Amino acid sequence: MPESQKTADELKDESLTFTLSDKEINEIAQAVQSQDSDTVHAVLEDLSPADTAELVAKFKDDDRNELLVMYGEAIDPEVFTEMDPELRRSTLSAMPPDQIASLISELDSDDALELIRPLDDRLQKEIIQRLSAKSRVALEEGLSFPEDSAGRLMQREIVAVPLFWTAGKTIDYLRAAGEDLPEEFFDIFVIDPAYHVRGQVPLNRLIRSKRAEKLEDLAETDVTTIPATMDQEEVAHLFRRDDLVSAPVIDENGRLIGVITIDDIVDVIDEEAQEDIMKMAGVERSDLYRAVLSTTGTRFRWLFINLLTAILASIVISFFDATIEQIVALAVLMPIVASMGGNAGTQALTVAVRALATKELSGANRMRVIWKETLVGTLNGAAFAVITGLVAALWFSNPMLGIVIAAAMIINLFAAGLCGAAIPILLDRYGSDPAVSSTVFLTTVTDVVGFFAFLGLAAILLL
Amino acid sequence: MPESQKTADELKDESLTFTLSDKEINEIAQAVQSQDSDTVHAVLEDLSPADTAELVAKFKDDDRNELLVMYGEAIDPEVFTEMDPELRRSTLSAMPPDQIASLISELDSDDALELIRPLDDRLQKEIIQRLSAKSRVALEEGLSFPEDSAGRLMQREIVAVPLFWTAGKTIDYLRAAGEDLPEEFFDIFVIDPAYHVRGQVPLNRLIRSKRAEKLEDLAETDVTTIPATMDQEEVAHLFRRDDLVSAPVIDENGRLIGVITIDDIVDVIDEEAQEDIMKMAGVERSDLYRAVLSTTGTRFRWLFINLLTAILASIVISFFDATIEQIVALAVLMPIVASMGGNAGTQALTVAVRALATKELSGANRMRVIWKETLVGTLNGAAFAVITGLVAALWFSNPMLGIVIAAAMIINLFAAGLCGAAIPILLDRYGSDPAVSSTVFLTTVTDVVGFFAFLGLAAILLL
Repeated sequence: MPESQKTADELKDESLTFTLSDKEINEIAQAVQSQDSDTVHAVLEDLSPADTAELVAKFKDDDRNELLVMYGEAIDPEVFTEMDPELRRSTLSAMPPDQIASLISELDSDDALELIRPLDDRLQKEIIQRLSAKSRVALEEGLSFPEDSAGRLMQREIVAVPLFWTAGKTIDYLRAAGEDLPEEFFDIFVIDPAYHVRGQVPLNRLIRSKRAEKLEDLAETDVTTIPATMDQEEVAHLFRRDDLVSAPVIDENGRLIGVITIDDIVDVIDEEAQEDIMKMAGVERSDLYRAVLSTTGTRFRWLFINLLTAILASIVISFFDATIEQIVALAVLMPIVASMGGNAGTQALTVAVRALATKELSGANRMRVIWKETLVGTLNGAAFAVITGLVAALWFSNPMLGIVIAAAMIINLFAAGLCGAAIPILLDRYGSDPAVSSTVFLTTVTDVVGFFAFLGLAAILLL
Repeated sequence: MPESQKTADELKDESLTFTLSDKEINEIAQAVQSQDSDTVHAVLEDLSPADTAELVAKFKDDDRNELLVMYGEAIDPEVFTEMDPELRRSTLSAMPPDQIASLISELDSDDALELIRPLDDRLQKEIIQRLSAKSRVALEEGLSFPEDSAGRLMQREIVAVPLFWTAGKTIDYLRAAGEDLPEEFFDIFVIDPAYHVRGQVPLNRLIRSKRAEKLEDLAETDVTTIPATMDQEEVAHLFRRDDLVSAPVIDENGRLIGVITIDDIVDVIDEEAQEDIMKMAGVERSDLYRAVLSTTGTRFRWLFINLLTAILASIVISFFDATIEQIVALAVLMPIVASMGGNAGTQALTVAVRALATKELSGANRMRVIWKETLVGTLNGAAFAVITGLVAALWFSNPMLGIVIAAAMIINLFAAGLCGAAIPILLDRYGSDPAVSSTVFLTTVTDVVGFFAFLGLAAILLL
């Protein structure tokens, strides 16, 4: 017993390096495999929920299942809310609904909702019917809000007091309320009898004010209220714009029904930023934890669309097969023009996609951004026209070939800059998500224009 | 006067849609151009700093300068801290140092530091020597911490009280302190005489506790302390992992010197996530606001490296020029193999780069991720081998050509999956930033392997 205790202490000391080391993870995995339950229990007690979630994520499937089956009771429910949704789905699906229900009953309403969100409908229903009436109503109402809406993010436990109260009365109320309050809160909401939010008092202001002061005078009245149906991306934008720490959520009648706190928003911001980068490559956020076949399937779709683009480019090349047959140097050089166009276009595209996501790009500066990116593309086109023109002319001892590739380079990088900025802007304007489909359209343009300009000019000028 | 007032009110009403509409932005720009100073003043008074920053960002250069010169006094200093750093640099550089110094004197220490951060050293010095002794010392000390470190993010205004105080005494102190406290705070730090952090009391716990309770008993003693030199990405990771709202910053002797709050971290998370996506395309976060020539220059470097990759691919093709001369269909089809490899590789790469950034990928699961991505690449390689094999065989009525492209597709997508995952992992392991250079290495692999496999097999099997 003292020996295994020591191991756990050592592990804890090492965790001062702020994250579990690979060595520690392997040691714990070994303890699980060798059924050294003293060590495992000691570790689970020492680790924070976030650390345990990281540990479980990095375990092999077998070790993970072993850990959850053998030590399920010792695992903090918050561990599951810290997990990647896909991983949460696969681990929870292997647990009996009774056990999941008992985990949920220990969580705040927003965490409970987050925990069962990725599960399939049937399992959700089985779990919900095992809960107390109060939790059941809360969860069912939460699930009735659209996916990724404020209603899904919010916590139903709120601190709201009437407008006419004083600071002193409010503090006394908080002292007396005890367990009924949310675990953590940063603001008190001031409401009228109809449950409309009339103001918001940050705790640090309440605590600094004299007992006799009225909330009416203390409250910030310029409150950012969040409709329950608002998309989480928009909510995150508001939190960032107004530097909010918590904000009240209202229903369609303007009544206060919940609160969203910054810790939920941090996850949303991270998720949304990751989503863009993932969508642009046609992968999904949970791909790290998804099974091989399912990952292959989702990627296949994206690659298939790209195959159609590549075939289109091949058709363009086939128009010029006679020209290539005569001057085989064209086949050698043509990928350079297309690839430079693709890279320059991706640069313009990345800037535009991110600026649209952060709302820094809209109608007011749209034309200026397209114009600037076109200019940047054309200028780099001119620079690379000189370089590749010289390389081609010297390599194949053919000055005219140099002129052809130089001209094609300028044309393609002009098109790349223009379309790299314009395609996401147009997609966004017509309601499509620019991160998803911009790259395919752009590659089509830079491939087709690149091959057409280079081979077409060659057919005219070199034959 | 009443008419312009009305315009401003209308604008404010419209701003209930949560963000400035393009129509509003254009209306305000017109008011600036027509020197309608009543309207402009009314607008500036109504808008939040974040809204004004958005407005200034979307203005044309001329309108922006006009606004800052004519109405500089009416602009809230926080507007500048909300701006993109590049935009802040260019607007502040046009203002006299005296005016910047007077803006800074109104800000908290972390905002003041953020405001002058993007300015060049000479201008920073000119501004700092115009400040009061206290602000000067604070800023100079702040600037002495490495760029992107916790010391740069932290606020020096802290609420710290001795371990032996009671809740009541602490609240009395807060009431009396008034102006000396930071504008906003969420936790009270409990310190010993040596200024070491012994605990942290969330305000909501302090306010709920009885006056006689000792801080010693109230405080969470498991405090995440942040060394001032820690990189901001690491700080953000800790905030997310431990769901922190504020955390104490300590110097090399463990003494409390500042506090980092979640609102700073939200910006860091967003910045870091954006940085990855930007680096992968060779662009910079501020490119939206950078001048054309400077943007062209930074992009040129990235494109130049990609040109070398493209030339390398051309050299591979040139080995097979005799083969292409005989079978021109090879030139038509070869971009398909390279492009599918590039896309499949980018998928694996994106997953690996993001997982490394979020620390979900490390030594413990490294080999499993590489193996999985290789398998996914190979499986999709097999699927696309069938499709492109059939397309090529039917298009050119040549079954052997179909077999050649099918084999090349499997080989290249195997290499794409393997290298897409392995390249960023290896770069990360040897201390390079995987987001910056992974794509170039990957493109080199998928181009070289793609062309070599396809043309090489063709030379062997078709001639």
